[in-house]
Amino acid sequence: MKRFHIQAPDEALRPIIQAKIDNLNKPKGSLGRLETLAMQICLAQQTLTPSLAHPCHLLLGGDHGIEREGVSVSPREVTWQQMINFTKGGGGVNMFCRQHGFHLRIVDVGVDYDLTHVEGIIDKKVARGTRNFLHEPAMTAEEYDRTLQVGIDLANECYAEGCKVLCIGEMGIANTSPSSIWMSLFCHIPLDECIGAGAGLNAAGISHKRDILQHALEHFGKQMPAPTADDAIRYFGGFEMVAAIGAMLRAAELKMLVLVDGFIMTACALAACQLHPETLSYMIFGHCGDESGHRRMLDALAAEPLLSLGLRLGEGTGALCAFPILDSAARMMNEMNNFDNANITKYF
Amino acid sequence: MKRFHIQAPDEALRPIIQAKIDNLNKPKGSLGRLETLAMQICLAQQTLTPSLAHPCHLLLGGDHGIEREGVSVSPREVTWQQMINFTKGGGGVNMFCRQHGFHLRIVDVGVDYDLTHVEGIIDKKVARGTRNFLHEPAMTAEEYDRTLQVGIDLANECYAEGCKVLCIGEMGIANTSPSSIWMSLFCHIPLDECIGAGAGLNAAGISHKRDILQHALEHFGKQMPAPTADDAIRYFGGFEMVAAIGAMLRAAELKMLVLVDGFIMTACALAACQLHPETLSYMIFGHCGDESGHRRMLDALAAEPLLSLGLRLGEGTGALCAFPILDSAARMMNEMNNFDNANITKYF
Repeated sequence: MKRFHIQAPDEALRPIIQAKIDNLNKPKGSLGRLETLAMQICLAQQTLTPSLAHPCHLLLGGDHGIEREGVSVSPREVTWQQMINFTKGGGGVNMFCRQHGFHLRIVDVGVDYDLTHVEGIIDKKVARGTRNFLHEPAMTAEEYDRTLQVGIDLANECYAEGCKVLCIGEMGIANTSPSSIWMSLFCHIPLDECIGAGAGLNAAGISHKRDILQHALEHFGKQMPAPTADDAIRYFGGFEMVAAIGAMLRAAELKMLVLVDGFIMTACALAACQLHPETLSYMIFGHCGDESGHRRMLDALAAEPLLSLGLRLGEGTGALCAFPILDSAARMMNEMNNFDNANITKYF
Repeated sequence: MKRFHIQAPDEALRPIIQAKIDNLNKPKGSLGRLETLAMQICLAQQTLTPSLAHPCHLLLGGDHGIEREGVSVSPREVTWQQMINFTKGGGGVNMFCRQHGFHLRIVDVGVDYDLTHVEGIIDKKVARGTRNFLHEPAMTAEEYDRTLQVGIDLANECYAEGCKVLCIGEMGIANTSPSSIWMSLFCHIPLDECIGAGAGLNAAGISHKRDILQHALEHFGKQMPAPTADDAIRYFGGFEMVAAIGAMLRAAELKMLVLVDGFIMTACALAACQLHPETLSYMIFGHCGDESGHRRMLDALAAEPLLSLGLRLGEGTGALCAFPILDSAARMMNEMNNFDNANITKYF
């Protein structure tokens, strides 16, 4: 099993950061969430002058064995079609990466299609889709380790380029299914309350999805009566999701900020925090989506998302849209006058 | 009285815009609030390819006679001190204008201090602060017209430069007081429920502020038993607020988008809509602040703010922070592939 050495930020700097924030040229606390965000960023980076240099976005793709059970409204081939589409620059994720200056890596971690000859897709394929977790673990222990390593390698590459903020998105038809199961297992919430419409299931579709996932969970319970977090992640996870977990853990180890997207990436964040709770200090939650259960998963992490714009596209788009708020928080620390140099009567 | 000829956008384009949005390469509706925002922008501009070119920010300053009654925790001189500080680039508004590419105009509409020799401040002073509305109208009818014209002229200047988005902020100690009164009068909400802490009043301060504003309202009722919206705006308004109203109305007349900030600017938006309800079609509400009552005023306008970050700095900072979301909505229309050119199995 991969091991990570993640340290929570040293709290000794907190009062010094707070003093700087409170002496900025504004009524105390008047920049609200920007101030708490600036605190988190400064603590994570152990600095009074934070940097968000070279933000990177990993778009990780993978297919899911469970898709064969009809748990998703979209067919499996949409995964590879969209992966190719992203290389052409016309997807939601491309727009937002351009807008906010993110370096985009499109990575095939486990798409069920040969993408090796598509320019612009990084080939890190572990296998052509996971196994069907209705009947067996989605991946073997060896595949699990290899997939975590994909995430680690990607985080290392970004770090080497000078990246301070790592954002992760996913493309994987049916990946709300493992997300719902992780939510249920890790938050101790009944499965029923963890299942939503995904990309557009109707009531009958949701009911079918619930039945399938319920069966899968029961089978898992028999196979693994005392599962560890690693067991649950490996049994249900998609390759793109486990790679995301690896990247999150390695990023936190390197003290990079992790910008977390919607339902699926929050499920991965939750899983990462099951393995290493200190990871949470490095995570910024960008967006609270509409997918049923996302809000409750955020609550379980005591996470306060920055945006709530009803986005449910995936690809990391919600998180990317939140980046300017991080930028504002950093600018507040780096560019705003304080009362000493502004010649203002200090008020509240 | 100034007259404006504001037309609501032609709705004939709505189904055509909607068809374009629905054919973009994403599950229908999956970009949530960005989609409704894109609709509003496209309708206002009567186009399928919106532009947010040359965004401008007006930072309008003015002092208030009512400040003499101790309704604010900050002293009057903070208005001119901050106006000068803004010229040095170290205020919250400066940071966010730089971040989002806004052209900033710092305008003295009625500051109680001679700023004529301060480089970087545009002199449009109507008078050195309004009169004290506890005893008399804040401004004369002639001053009211002149102040509206200041706003009109500023909007015209921005328009001539090619501005598509006009954002407005304010600096004026005590200007939550007229805002609360307008809210009470225009939303028919008891004054008590319209008064908040401003920049940091304690309970005794809030109670005092309520007494003063209650007296002022009673006196107004005797002086003007059947007031028009113009009467109420002139009687209580600050120069910076009435100039903002003039700018909002002229912007809407010119079909520019108006990006609305927090409590005070929302009160001005409310006042503008009392005069010309069609103005609302051109208004985008950037941020829901913490000032008690802001949410209810937004509800009265059926406005859905984009952000809720607990900002209460004023200066237009909340609205400026929301600009990237407008930009995302515009990019969605201009840059995103549709299903015809993306070669994707169209899903929901």
